[in-house]
Amino acid sequence: MRVLGIDPGLTRCGVGIIEGDSGRKPALLLADVVRTPAEMETGQRLASLERSLVQYLAEYRPDAIAVERVFARRDVSTIIGTAQASGVVLLVGTRAGLQVAQHTPSEVKAAITGNGRADKAQVGQMVMRILKLEAPPRPADAADAVALAVCHLWRAPAIARINEAQVRRDLAMGQALARARAAQRRLA
Amino acid sequence: MRVLGIDPGLTRCGVGIIEGDSGRKPALLLADVVRTPAEMETGQRLASLERSLVQYLAEYRPDAIAVERVFARRDVSTIIGTAQASGVVLLVGTRAGLQVAQHTPSEVKAAITGNGRADKAQVGQMVMRILKLEAPPRPADAADAVALAVCHLWRAPAIARINEAQVRRDLAMGQALARARAAQRRLA
Repeated sequence: MRVLGIDPGLTRCGVGIIEGDSGRKPALLLADVVRTPAEMETGQRLASLERSLVQYLAEYRPDAIAVERVFARRDVSTIIGTAQASGVVLLVGTRAGLQVAQHTPSEVKAAITGNGRADKAQVGQMVMRILKLEAPPRPADAADAVALAVCHLWRAPAIARINEAQVRRDLAMGQALARARAAQRRLA
Repeated sequence: MRVLGIDPGLTRCGVGIIEGDSGRKPALLLADVVRTPAEMETGQRLASLERSLVQYLAEYRPDAIAVERVFARRDVSTIIGTAQASGVVLLVGTRAGLQVAQHTPSEVKAAITGNGRADKAQVGQMVMRILKLEAPPRPADAADAVALAVCHLWRAPAIARINEAQVRRDLAMGQALARARAAQRRLA
C-alpha cells in the first residue's frame, strides 16, 4: 500500500509518500514541500497547489491520502489558508477516487510513539527508526507529512475493520427490522 | 458585466448571479443554494460543490466571481468547512480564468447601504430596490450571495482604477530607478 501524507498549508505544504505492507517495514519514497508565494492571489495559490497534487498522484499513484485534520483552534493568522489548502487536498483525492482520511495531530503522535502528547523530536526519532533513515526526513517541513502517512498506513487496517463491523451491524439491524415488520404484519 | 456572487458554505452555499452595466440597473438572473449533506465525507461535499460551480459557470458564463472573505473570527464550529468551500470557489474561478474577488461582509454592507454596520433587513431592502424585486431574493440563503454580486458590480470599476494606478506607480518607480542607476553609472 502506498500512502501520500499531506501537512496542508498555502505557504508551505508538506508532502510525504511511503510504501509498506503488513509485516514489512515501510519505505520512504518522497519527502517534499510545495510552496506558493504569499503575494500571489489565494485562487492562484490554490490552483498551483492543485496542479502539484495532481502531478504527485500521476507520478506516484498512491492508494490512499492522509491529510492533517484542521481545527479552528490552530494558529488564527494562518487557519483560513490552511483550511483552504486542506480542502483542495480532500477535493483532489476524492476526485481521483482515492481513500482520503483525515488524522488529528494527536492521532499521528499516538500512532507513531504510543503517546498522543509526544513532542516533535520524539515523533521525528520514531519516524527515522520506522523508515530506517539516518536523519529526519528533509526538507523539515515534510516531516509531519511523512508521519501522517505512517500513521495512516498503521491505522488503515483498523479503520477498515471498523467500517466492516459497521456494515455488518447495519445489515443485522436491517434483518432484525425486517423480521419485526413481518411479525407486525402477521399480527395485523 | 455578469457577476456570480457566492456566500460560501458546505451545508448551504448561497449563489447569486446578476447582470448590469454602468448607467443601467442590474438584473437578477439567479438566486440558488447548493446543499451537501452533513453526513457525507468532506471530500465528497467539496467535489459536489465543485461540480455545481463548474455547471453554473458553463450555463451562465459570468465575467467575475465575488466570494465572501472568510475570517477566523467567524462561527468556530463551521469555520473550517466555510474556509474549505471558499477555497473551492477561488480555485474553480481562477482555473476558469475569471476575475475572482473577495469582499468582507462590512464591505458588502457599505457598498449596498452606505453603512458597513447595516443589519440583514436593511441590506435585503436595498438589494430589493436595486434589483427591482417585489420580495427579497429566495431562497433566503442566497440573499447574501446576491448582495455580494451587487457589491462587486459596484466596486469593480473602483478596484480596476486602483489596480491601474498601482501599475502606473510601479512603472513610474521603475523609470525613476532606471534613471538613478544610469546617474550612478555615470558617476562611477
